[in-house]
Amino acid sequence: MTTKKRILSGMQPTGGGKLHLGNLEGALRPWTKLQDDYEMFCFVADWHSLTTVAEKHVDLREAARQTAIDYLSAGLDPAKCAIFRQSDVKEHAELHLLLSMTTPVGWLERVPTYKEKREIIKENDTQVSYGLLGYPVLQTADIVLYRAHAVPVGRDQAAHIEISREIVRRFNKIVGEEIFPEPQAIISEATGEVPGLDGRKMSKSYDNAIYLSDTAKETQKKINKAFTTPTKIHITDPGEPEGCVACKLRRTYDPANYLTQWDECRAGLRGCGQSKKELAEVINENLAPLRAKRAELEADPGYVDQVLKEGAERARAAAVDTMRIVRKALMIGDHG
Amino acid sequence: MTTKKRILSGMQPTGGGKLHLGNLEGALRPWTKLQDDYEMFCFVADWHSLTTVAEKHVDLREAARQTAIDYLSAGLDPAKCAIFRQSDVKEHAELHLLLSMTTPVGWLERVPTYKEKREIIKENDTQVSYGLLGYPVLQTADIVLYRAHAVPVGRDQAAHIEISREIVRRFNKIVGEEIFPEPQAIISEATGEVPGLDGRKMSKSYDNAIYLSDTAKETQKKINKAFTTPTKIHITDPGEPEGCVACKLRRTYDPANYLTQWDECRAGLRGCGQSKKELAEVINENLAPLRAKRAELEADPGYVDQVLKEGAERARAAAVDTMRIVRKALMIGDHG
Repeated sequence: MTTKKRILSGMQPTGGGKLHLGNLEGALRPWTKLQDDYEMFCFVADWHSLTTVAEKHVDLREAARQTAIDYLSAGLDPAKCAIFRQSDVKEHAELHLLLSMTTPVGWLERVPTYKEKREIIKENDTQVSYGLLGYPVLQTADIVLYRAHAVPVGRDQAAHIEISREIVRRFNKIVGEEIFPEPQAIISEATGEVPGLDGRKMSKSYDNAIYLSDTAKETQKKINKAFTTPTKIHITDPGEPEGCVACKLRRTYDPANYLTQWDECRAGLRGCGQSKKELAEVINENLAPLRAKRAELEADPGYVDQVLKEGAERARAAAVDTMRIVRKALMIGDHG
Repeated sequence: MTTKKRILSGMQPTGGGKLHLGNLEGALRPWTKLQDDYEMFCFVADWHSLTTVAEKHVDLREAARQTAIDYLSAGLDPAKCAIFRQSDVKEHAELHLLLSMTTPVGWLERVPTYKEKREIIKENDTQVSYGLLGYPVLQTADIVLYRAHAVPVGRDQAAHIEISREIVRRFNKIVGEEIFPEPQAIISEATGEVPGLDGRKMSKSYDNAIYLSDTAKETQKKINKAFTTPTKIHITDPGEPEGCVACKLRRTYDPANYLTQWDECRAGLRGCGQSKKELAEVINENLAPLRAKRAELEADPGYVDQVLKEGAERARAAAVDTMRIVRKALMIGDHG
């Protein structure tokens, strides 16, 4: 019996399910630091990915496995943390349905990301699904199914938890009991800044990402195309490291030596080619253990499936307990 | 292995779950005629009842059992037809979630009953839940979870199936396969006209109903208050049977002799008191076997629970098959 507080984290297996350096430093590595201090449930949010199924129909079973491989490669430890696919724990769907009955539709319609999406594609409104509107309901079910006390989120996502807190408060009020704790945000600081290769946020949809599954050679090639100081044509031209993707990545992946590189860049003592070559080396060195682990896991799909199976069993055990309490509070169905 | 076509029917366990004569003649008795010709799944739609949980929080487990008792008392035979609680088959919730991803929210917003409800309570819009908007999605999941070919509905409800057909068409189109048949409406004619005691439609919410669970004495008392011809004060005043609740119920429950009663009423040869007394007699006679069965079932809750358990097992077996196919088509999660 653990007395640690519970937390829940997870990511969608978008775009084939493979995660990138932004995910690694912004989420996976911060999560690995939490798994010792909390009872952690870490899921692959495959059902959430279906909100875009009408636009793009992809193999989410394989994508979810890739995401799980990235979780494990980055150091999430199945002995400490339940790693599982959302779709393997049907109670997420049951609780989503129950919360859908207590959540005012007006709250969901006023969520800014929903309003924007709806605005953008209003000329083809069949692309906005009922499930997209209900995204926060499923997100809330994910969290409170484990009666999680908190969710680790990036600084810019803390607001996303607020609607879950409102949904929980209303549910508790309707059933007249504090069934669910109001989930808190654990602001987990990124372990380093990771801009995309074109200078925008690193994202699958911008095609500007370095993936954990990329080889050393692919990484080198991608870095060669990274955005640097546009006015630095010759080696002797002064660079501006603060605006250069290669320099910012160097700071993240070579904190001990990056200042020398930045100074030389500013002084026109080195060219971008050299900086990129060295950057690829430090990134590849940093990722070497992760990639070795990844190769091992790729070669042993049975192990990954086993991790997901056992993770789902642990998650389900917790979920079944919660649902018995929820059904009893709602006075519906089987609650022994 | 049956080659009969599958149908699904069901009712909400509203207002304590007890059904009335309107439900009996409009649904239960027509259903009993279908159970020989079709492979029938007959559920108690307890999750649907939660759309009003914010206004009224009632014991839905007991209500669902009462509805099941009424199903059985009216002649639905668990040997022919799977009788179960919706909330006992979690796959309803899973399929609801999956269909929520493929169903355009705009379609649901344009459903007339939703628009009306939203209009009526717009000053307190927290009472309109996300689940109320999604009612047709859950209804569709209920039907297609069994790949049912048809749903028995009253003549005035045939339109309700149309949105399910649209939801199915869109799902099939997105996955590129005919996973679900488009459900048809089986128009099941009521076995007799049953107005409420006040002349409006018989309904729990109007408090004008005779329940299957009412005793003979309660039935007599209720009928004594039934609406008759307002201008017929004395026995000799002429009545208008076509507008009289007691006369219309007599036609339903005493088809062989009602014409004599109507003629005497019109001619002022009998009073409403006598008509009501006779009506209570014929109704009580008609309901006697049903009430005997009901008393038996009330006294044996273990049997009812067993019926629901076995019904849920049969339903689940069919649901699990469907979900495997659905997950495979969506390329998500476990699909063996």
